[in-house]
Amino acid sequence: MKIVIVGASGTIGSAVSNLLANQHEIVRVGHSQGDALVDMTDGASIDALFEGIGPFDALVVASGNVAFAPLTELSDEQWQLGLESKLMGQIKLTRAAVPYLNEGGSVTLISGILSEEPIYWGVSATTINGAVEHFVKAAACELPKGLRINVVSPTVLTESMDKYSAFFPGFEPVPAARVALAYQKSVLGVQTGQVFRVNG
Amino acid sequence: MKIVIVGASGTIGSAVSNLLANQHEIVRVGHSQGDALVDMTDGASIDALFEGIGPFDALVVASGNVAFAPLTELSDEQWQLGLESKLMGQIKLTRAAVPYLNEGGSVTLISGILSEEPIYWGVSATTINGAVEHFVKAAACELPKGLRINVVSPTVLTESMDKYSAFFPGFEPVPAARVALAYQKSVLGVQTGQVFRVNG
Ligand SMILES: NC(=O)c1ccc[n+]([C@@H]2O[C@H](COP(=O)([O-])OP(=O)(O)OC[C@H]3O[C@@H](n4cnc5c(N)ncnc54)[C@H](OP(=O)(O)O)[C@@H]3O)[C@@H](O)[C@H]2O)c1
Ligand SMILES: NC(=O)c1ccc[n+]([C@@H]2O[C@H](COP(=O)([O-])OP(=O)(O)OC[C@H]3O[C@@H](n4cnc5c(N)ncnc54)[C@H](OP(=O)(O)O)[C@@H]3O)[C@@H](O)[C@H]2O)c1
Repeated sequence: MKIVIVGASGTIGSAVSNLLANQHEIVRVGHSQGDALVDMTDGASIDALFEGIGPFDALVVASGNVAFAPLTELSDEQWQLGLESKLMGQIKLTRAAVPYLNEGGSVTLISGILSEEPIYWGVSATTINGAVEHFVKAAACELPKGLRINVVSPTVLTESMDKYSAFFPGFEPVPAARVALAYQKSVLGVQTGQVFRVNG
Repeated sequence: MKIVIVGASGTIGSAVSNLLANQHEIVRVGHSQGDALVDMTDGASIDALFEGIGPFDALVVASGNVAFAPLTELSDEQWQLGLESKLMGQIKLTRAAVPYLNEGGSVTLISGILSEEPIYWGVSATTINGAVEHFVKAAACELPKGLRINVVSPTVLTESMDKYSAFFPGFEPVPAARVALAYQKSVLGVQTGQVFRVNG
């Protein structure tokens, strides 16, 4: 299988790349490093990415930003970051990948536990992650060519606890290797329209 | 109670206004008609609205647009409509209302059954309605002054079946009067962070 991984250099993306690289051809895509570059907030950059890669079997996304701030202080610009990057970035990647995905291929996106469990400063993340999960539910009903789409929703990662632990009191972290298994289930399995939650 | 209803002239908003007007002071807000006018996609217009109204007890929203089109044909502009109107419009109304809402007041937003049940051409509606429901879940945890926030999620309305019935095969419609009860429960009840679903 030829698998395109956007965010392949990241904490999650590198674990997914490592797991899938044994048996598959991986195209590692990043913003500043990788086999190919893309800015997922820019439609033209996304079009150029897939034009350069040609036909493939699975799109994996492990990237997308949101802003963290208190509800009453989150500015329009901070909301916009999550809408343009993690939400519309993933939607645009999906929409642009469809013509290049082979029959029976798949798309796997990323959300995160904040869709289910709010934290301080997390209102934009909860909103955006929820939106991504709902997008996947609807898109699964409409994708052509027998394409499947799922989303992986991990809790905070063990590898990220140095940065994020103060925001996640009482959350049991999971290693990136477990999150990679959820991606593998999505890419190689039969399910579609699912949220694969990876919790502690 | 002084209740501000944005979208008061609409199918849902007029039913809510009628139900609540017996026992409460209603400020009917619309885009082109009402006691006060607002463009919910415009932050400055929203600020001017609440400055003009002053302190009040409950914000009710029954407005917000999304575009309907097939997944692979939905343009950036069509996605933007839902993001700016139904999602960020409601978020901006909520954020701007906080300083004007009296202690123990409430916010009630609108989503819709498409968050739960995808239909043809509904992928943006499913995504945006899901985002609004998740916003409410997170915002409820952070609102100051004992403010509550809920969202009403109705199925298609009996009153709208002439326009929408082709999109909702097999959906049991509900009269706007039943949707108004869900708003009443939100405004006068004790619950917060809830999705009040109104199904056939
Ligand atoms: N880490 C966690 O605990 C955790 C938990 C749940 C969910 N998540 C979610 O998982 C996703 C990835 O998180 P992570 O911690 O693995 O991220 P990360 O380590 O910061 O890696 C981010 C990746 O995204 C790429 N990237 C950055 N900007 C981009 C752009 N504009 N266009 C395309 N790619 C871009 C980066 O590429 P370059 O290296 O080339 O710049 C990098 O490969 C995020 O959406 C995050 O919210 C993370
Ligand atoms: N109808 C249904 O079957 C149904 C079912 C589930 C969910 N919903 C949702 O419920 C909401 C209201 O639906 P509806 O059918 O009651 O709508 P509607 O009858 O079309 O009424 C829309 C209302 O929104 C106001 N409005 C329009 N543009 C606005 C703007 N830019 N800023 C502020 N207000 C604006 C209108 O004011 P003016 O009259 O002054 O222009 C009007 O009061 C929508 O979000 C819809 O998706 C509807």
